[in-house]
Amino acid sequence: MTLKDKIDIAAGRKKAGLVLKNCKIVNVFTLEVIEGDVAIEGDTIVAVGAYEGEKETDIAGQYVTPGFIDGHVHIESSMLTPARFAEAVVPRGTTAVIADPHEIANVRGEDGIRFMIEDSKSAPLDVHVMLPSCVPAVDFEEAGACLDAAAIRRLIRLEGVLGLGEVMCYPDAAAGAAGVIEKIKAAEGRVIDGHAPRLTGKELAAYVISGPSTEHECETIEEMKEKLRLGMYIHIRNGTVSREVKHLVKGITPENTRRTMFCTDDRHPLDLLKDGHIDHALRVAVAHGLDPLQAVAMATHNPATCYGLKRAGAVAPGYRADLAVVDDLKDFRVSRVYKNGKLVAENGKALFETKPADSRGVTRTVHMDPIAEDDLKIRLRSGEARVISPVTDSIVTRNVTRSVTVKDGCFAFDPQKDICKVAVFERHRRTGHIGLGLLEGFGLKDGAIAQTIAHDSHNIIAAGGSDRDIAFAVNELVKGKQGGIVLTRGGAVVKKIELPVAGLLSPLPLREVAEALSDVERAARETLGVNAKYNPLMLLGFLALPVIPEIRVTTRGLFDVTAFQFIEV
Amino acid sequence: MTLKDKIDIAAGRKKAGLVLKNCKIVNVFTLEVIEGDVAIEGDTIVAVGAYEGEKETDIAGQYVTPGFIDGHVHIESSMLTPARFAEAVVPRGTTAVIADPHEIANVRGEDGIRFMIEDSKSAPLDVHVMLPSCVPAVDFEEAGACLDAAAIRRLIRLEGVLGLGEVMCYPDAAAGAAGVIEKIKAAEGRVIDGHAPRLTGKELAAYVISGPSTEHECETIEEMKEKLRLGMYIHIRNGTVSREVKHLVKGITPENTRRTMFCTDDRHPLDLLKDGHIDHALRVAVAHGLDPLQAVAMATHNPATCYGLKRAGAVAPGYRADLAVVDDLKDFRVSRVYKNGKLVAENGKALFETKPADSRGVTRTVHMDPIAEDDLKIRLRSGEARVISPVTDSIVTRNVTRSVTVKDGCFAFDPQKDICKVAVFERHRRTGHIGLGLLEGFGLKDGAIAQTIAHDSHNIIAAGGSDRDIAFAVNELVKGKQGGIVLTRGGAVVKKIELPVAGLLSPLPLREVAEALSDVERAARETLGVNAKYNPLMLLGFLALPVIPEIRVTTRGLFDVTAFQFIEV
Repeated sequence: MTLKDKIDIAAGRKKAGLVLKNCKIVNVFTLEVIEGDVAIEGDTIVAVGAYEGEKETDIAGQYVTPGFIDGHVHIESSMLTPARFAEAVVPRGTTAVIADPHEIANVRGEDGIRFMIEDSKSAPLDVHVMLPSCVPAVDFEEAGACLDAAAIRRLIRLEGVLGLGEVMCYPDAAAGAAGVIEKIKAAEGRVIDGHAPRLTGKELAAYVISGPSTEHECETIEEMKEKLRLGMYIHIRNGTVSREVKHLVKGITPENTRRTMFCTDDRHPLDLLKDGHIDHALRVAVAHGLDPLQAVAMATHNPATCYGLKRAGAVAPGYRADLAVVDDLKDFRVSRVYKNGKLVAENGKALFETKPADSRGVTRTVHMDPIAEDDLKIRLRSGEARVISPVTDSIVTRNVTRSVTVKDGCFAFDPQKDICKVAVFERHRRTGHIGLGLLEGFGLKDGAIAQTIAHDSHNIIAAGGSDRDIAFAVNELVKGKQGGIVLTRGGAVVKKIELPVAGLLSPLPLREVAEALSDVERAARETLGVNAKYNPLMLLGFLALPVIPEIRVTTRGLFDVTAFQFIEV
Repeated sequence: MTLKDKIDIAAGRKKAGLVLKNCKIVNVFTLEVIEGDVAIEGDTIVAVGAYEGEKETDIAGQYVTPGFIDGHVHIESSMLTPARFAEAVVPRGTTAVIADPHEIANVRGEDGIRFMIEDSKSAPLDVHVMLPSCVPAVDFEEAGACLDAAAIRRLIRLEGVLGLGEVMCYPDAAAGAAGVIEKIKAAEGRVIDGHAPRLTGKELAAYVISGPSTEHECETIEEMKEKLRLGMYIHIRNGTVSREVKHLVKGITPENTRRTMFCTDDRHPLDLLKDGHIDHALRVAVAHGLDPLQAVAMATHNPATCYGLKRAGAVAPGYRADLAVVDDLKDFRVSRVYKNGKLVAENGKALFETKPADSRGVTRTVHMDPIAEDDLKIRLRSGEARVISPVTDSIVTRNVTRSVTVKDGCFAFDPQKDICKVAVFERHRRTGHIGLGLLEGFGLKDGAIAQTIAHDSHNIIAAGGSDRDIAFAVNELVKGKQGGIVLTRGGAVVKKIELPVAGLLSPLPLREVAEALSDVERAARETLGVNAKYNPLMLLGFLALPVIPEIRVTTRGLFDVTAFQFIEV
């Protein structure tokens, strides 16, 4: 198809390959709904008006919007490979994502990033990559890789790479610390994503001038407005843990809406399966009073503008035919999705098959020797111990002191006290480093849980009753080399989810992963006794992240985040 | 100044080089006015808030806006070189223009374009060039140059070149004609400006998909809205001949304003001197009901977004310190202008000096031999002749038949009948081609006017009473080789303006050029008798342009634009 053909089709001198008839088209430039046909040739929208096609599809008065764009997502939180993620979100109307492959980069560095790009290629989803800027999260972390400025310089020109991912070390950036500034310079001229929760005033100005021009961490409307004034684009988040849509949409006005968009950041399999993706953000936003046309622009045109995506985010001549067909602008039930002019999903079902990329560079990533029970002993000088106390519905923890049972000078598990052992095992470089701690309120009575998802370095984290149970669970993961999540009791595996890609992702479809995850969570509660108020996998997943207050356990031991130093149990 | 320095200044750990104190800052992202200081270091706005500087300037509660941007201008219409144009418009608050050097390109092709870029370099004005896409205007035109697709491919990567200038041959583009499509392809990935007056429906869709994404020719709000819906950015024009601001601002809404901006297109010296530049567009727009903050965004942020100008169009951290200080948001009287952090104008006076570029490649552009009186004879078979009849306040003409005085088988000038001779002389390649015609209503009683400004090819056009007067005037320009405008009577020069650069531009400052122009216009009326209802120079300037209805005179003779063919007098 030549440009001449497209011109002739637009002029009505030639039939279009495909015409969607009787559409209510959302115009994101003028925020209007226009009735008409959409003429498509090849991958391109050629015109909107009254057209005839070689093939015609009656849209029967439904709304046609541009395909949705997730402005900031860590695909890894879906526990799906990019190809499987596409199968899950494309039927929900998503045709592009701005992805920061921060998790897999912590495990497998450049190989991980390249895998994410390659694996998405067979799917009708544009995966635009922002290079992870904080790998490892902090200097003393034992991650599987380190992405320094030289790596950013190397990768920034890779096809599929847009810019630099969220600069999470915002105090460093606002201080002008050399390490992060070098990475920012390596991405000069590209979009640099921000992450600066609650930063304000001069510190925020310092952060902004260092480079970042987007923000997805706003909690209040005032915070959002201050950041908008500084020229930041604002992502309104609808993830699993963090969901600010309901609240923040109250601060969106016709004057500032063009600089806002939706994102999911981290969205877990069960939410993707149950509620969907950006379609869900739209539903929630409109239910909470946002103008539906502004909402559609926020899901499409605005992120395309922010990230400079060519020919994306509008239903107009010359734009790519990435379209979502929805019943109305309230429930946003997606009945059809077109990507590059092809029908790729209908009534929630993907009509495409994906071809997984070669994953040899990102599998078998558990590099550690089996552990022994003796490795897990916590010696105590008294009956008092430092204990991690989780906070409900948050990833924050409290640093508390509790009296515990001591036997032979070591901590002894007592189900009555509801304090169990939690341990982190370096699994990338066979250092044998193990950090030990105690966790209260988890509810676990028996058995153990071990998993290779432990933000951000994704070492193995395990919690359990007896040292035997913990060792058995961890060694299950070590034996398989692939990583995943395992529940054990009495020397037997109760449930297991294999996550062969970097110990983070499953090659299975969303439904299977979500069901397996449900099974594991149920077994954790029913068989191990884990307190129902916690999601055990998420709780463990964040316990090793030494940038979230107040206390964490890392491969090098217990870490007091407030004092920013290692401490004794 | 390093990035670290800027970060330290923003954080308040270090003083800024310059702080503008007590400003009312127009925030173009949120359309708010924020009170505070603007901290500047080097060429960059570092922060907005409460800051201290090595140097501090009290703005005393005036408004600080981003520097104004003219979204589409032919600098040549100012009859000034780019350096002199900058001296004229920078004190009016303009710090960047999107310039299409279409006129000089018709005379001197690539050399002309390069001169416009070079000559602007010493001035504190960003001149972003769109490559002229229609040189010559039509195939049969005898211009001084031809810019084909190969030339576009060569020039598109030149520093200072942004994209492709207005695609004026809109019927060709909408038809997919090979010539224009090749040029469009040569500019792939860049912004392509449009020019498609009154085009609508499928023809417009065909035009848009061919490439153009902006439009400055809208006459009605409906036309503007249709074009906005197709994704075009709309320039609201405030030129000399075409001024749609008053009318079109009524169609601008909070929903569509982000895709609109101001331009001047063609603005003549007297208007620049008397009323100003984009500051005048702002005054007119606000006087006609446009929200002042939307208006400022249209003059700054919106064109910066449309044309992808980096770090331009906002007062926020990291943006270039291009600023206009205005008394209020009604009269927009500009009291100070900053460019790249330096005060470059104050109270209407430029505080900078420009250094003209080497103009040897664009001067002495009159390449023709002296003409003889006999070259000008119009033979007539009867007392009836085809006559060009101008329309007041328009560049359109009517094709009429009139009875004229015939002597020796040739047209004879009779001041009583108010029909004089008009002639166009090929002046680029010494072909000797002369086209002759008759013009009614011009009022000229005696003498002649000749000029090297004759859109678009800028051959010499002359109108006069006796053949002797016409030949004398034309030969004055031929003798000097430089071109310009000359008024003669009785074998003597009455008034003359030298335009040595391409026969189009003066190296003198605006005031001198405007005054000389006033003198010439007055002399044309008072000494030659030209009808006061016409601007004689503008009327002659458009009489040779064979794309404006109904009848024109070209180097190859009289042209019937409606029938699109040459005709006899």
